[in-house]
Amino acid sequence: MAFERWKVTNSRYVVRDRWMTLRADRCETASGVVLDPYYVQEPADWVHIVAFDCEDRILLTRQYRHGAGRVCSELPCGVIEQGETPAQAATRELLEETGCAAQKLQPLPALSPNPACYSNRIYAFAASDTRRVQSQRLDQTEEIEFEFLTLNEVFSLIDGDSFPQALHVATLFMSLRHRGLLSVRI
Amino acid sequence: MAFERWKVTNSRYVVRDRWMTLRADRCETASGVVLDPYYVQEPADWVHIVAFDCEDRILLTRQYRHGAGRVCSELPCGVIEQGETPAQAATRELLEETGCAAQKLQPLPALSPNPACYSNRIYAFAASDTRRVQSQRLDQTEEIEFEFLTLNEVFSLIDGDSFPQALHVATLFMSLRHRGLLSVRI
Repeated sequence: MAFERWKVTNSRYVVRDRWMTLRADRCETASGVVLDPYYVQEPADWVHIVAFDCEDRILLTRQYRHGAGRVCSELPCGVIEQGETPAQAATRELLEETGCAAQKLQPLPALSPNPACYSNRIYAFAASDTRRVQSQRLDQTEEIEFEFLTLNEVFSLIDGDSFPQALHVATLFMSLRHRGLLSVRI
Repeated sequence: MAFERWKVTNSRYVVRDRWMTLRADRCETASGVVLDPYYVQEPADWVHIVAFDCEDRILLTRQYRHGAGRVCSELPCGVIEQGETPAQAATRELLEETGCAAQKLQPLPALSPNPACYSNRIYAFAASDTRRVQSQRLDQTEEIEFEFLTLNEVFSLIDGDSFPQALHVATLFMSLRHRGLLSVRI
């Protein structure tokens, strides 16, 4: 089957501020069906960091997340600022959120938060030999705890609904696979 | 550290139609910092299905995704309709998108698409002994191919940027882990 791109016959921004860029397109499929509005979000690209210490423990953050209305464990992450490479953003976010630095950053395959309705990309890194080098440098809206945990402890958090962030769960497994720490029995 | 929920001092809907529910809150953190607007999306809950056939191949779909502007491979998925259980939604979506039915559905730990800015949940299932039982029943806006692939083929699609949907990558790995097909070397 040859898929055809939808034709966009009109496009407008519903929200376009510092926090969100939301576009509403009028689309026509190849078979002539009209979708109006079809919403697409256009955030800047994001970066995730799976930071291992020298004992292969993983650095998690913990903060209040207002969408879910509760405290969640997750990976260090953030927005790639204009002019930054993904690796520069990863280094900066790791340092700001946790005061940690890594010896080496290994890029993982890029992903999308949801290709149906997001235009941006997620760049993720596995960081090696991560250790504390300075204190956190948080925005005034941020309050972040951090801790190195064993993989079993991280899995317990995921299974117990304390680490619900699916995008970070994807990155975590990708980092394990790309470091050769996962084997699959099928 | 005891995290406190942000106080919501005002709340309004920016978009509230069939396709999107977007709320803008005025929030105050415990230390008195004001965030206004803080956007939260409130979609219905979602369901993902990792459907294995009797040879442990995995059922993938393939369709045009307008956010990314390209064709993507992913898992069968959809919205949980009002009155449906997650398992009922999984059974329905699998049948509609691929005409397939499974012998057994194993629920996986629930996740969030992004607890910072989404209020909904992702319910995922590992489906066993999946096979074709009827033809697809697609909406008029949907054009979906489907195919059973080996796990190595699925990993190649992820590594090659043909399966970029991070939420589904998370579900895929969770299903492998919960079926006892993954082992970890740390």
